[in-house]
Amino acid sequence: MCDSYLEGEINMTPIVSYEHREERKLLILQAAKEVFINKGFNATTIQDIINHSGVSRGGVYTYFQNTEDIFIELLKRRDLKDALDLESLYHDGATSLQVLTLVLAQIEEAIEGQKDSLVPVIYEYYFTTGWGTKKHLLMLEKRIEQAHKSLVQILEKGVADNEFRPELPIEDIASTILTFSDGIYVNSFHLGPEKVKLKSQFAAFRHYLSSVLGV
Amino acid sequence: MCDSYLEGEINMTPIVSYEHREERKLLILQAAKEVFINKGFNATTIQDIINHSGVSRGGVYTYFQNTEDIFIELLKRRDLKDALDLESLYHDGATSLQVLTLVLAQIEEAIEGQKDSLVPVIYEYYFTTGWGTKKHLLMLEKRIEQAHKSLVQILEKGVADNEFRPELPIEDIASTILTFSDGIYVNSFHLGPEKVKLKSQFAAFRHYLSSVLGV
Repeated sequence: MCDSYLEGEINMTPIVSYEHREERKLLILQAAKEVFINKGFNATTIQDIINHSGVSRGGVYTYFQNTEDIFIELLKRRDLKDALDLESLYHDGATSLQVLTLVLAQIEEAIEGQKDSLVPVIYEYYFTTGWGTKKHLLMLEKRIEQAHKSLVQILEKGVADNEFRPELPIEDIASTILTFSDGIYVNSFHLGPEKVKLKSQFAAFRHYLSSVLGV
Repeated sequence: MCDSYLEGEINMTPIVSYEHREERKLLILQAAKEVFINKGFNATTIQDIINHSGVSRGGVYTYFQNTEDIFIELLKRRDLKDALDLESLYHDGATSLQVLTLVLAQIEEAIEGQKDSLVPVIYEYYFTTGWGTKKHLLMLEKRIEQAHKSLVQILEKGVADNEFRPELPIEDIASTILTFSDGIYVNSFHLGPEKVKLKSQFAAFRHYLSSVLGV
């Protein structure tokens, strides 16, 4: 009874469609992203985001409590976009070696391009505010788990199809792929892809994988 | 003649011995390190360091212009301490495989221990102030070059002694060792050594190296 009373209350508030809410959120998030890239995470205030988005203070606070909330929401949406789509990678009968090679090439390309200017801001957040609040950790773990799971699936399929004869547990092989990618990502971020010799390092790592997978 | 006149001038200023200067610097640096660990890089002011070190304002400004100067000096001294001492590693006739294994074990141990509480502050600096001023970049490059050079020397000696028969250029093998170490360092820093499965990842990486070095 209490529940239905509350439901009644909620139903009396103006109905704002999901699409409209999502649109407003996107407007705020897009403006926030631009401000974050310009000023960095810690120097950005809610007022900056209000000014840049053109959404009222009340409007912004309807969806977010503070700049960290907004930033975390930006990160969540990035992760969804970045997830590997295995089904499309295996389209028209690619082998697991081809898929694995393609995934590595995509990582190499993403590092070489370094187009995403939010990355320095993400690192700034990780090592300042996030280091204290730990609000991003669960998401970071999920992102790593998800990528790890996709790599394990590729390796498992390769084993099932008799393409790979791994000399080590495939979970460990998948972990080293992520570790290598993160290492070259961070170093390339600071020193640039040429100084870290991106191409020859990826070639060497592909050699390690071919060898441990027996291909 | 002009030179000797200047020399005369310098000799007339009070003589402060190198040891005394070094002692004062160390006092400031040690105090600064404690403040940085407590407050983070950006929140620390020169006044904090003056208060905590007990050295006068004039005294601190004799050696350093600002907190970034002090921080960079701390980093420089860390690097000197961290450099690999190949001569002592090869003492009483160790093989190159033993030395390489020892170096990897030391890296693994350092990551597992994570005792150095200045590390979060270093990352904070890299991705905020340092990201703007780039004052640390030359030092970071030198540190990587130095570590790379030491690894190449170990691999070269192993080849000369017929221990290693590398399937790839040893420069590239050395680079991947650094990349892997940095990747696992960063991930372990955020998620802890257990979640990143430090031990099995290092085991896998040693396997890759054995294979590419033909041992």
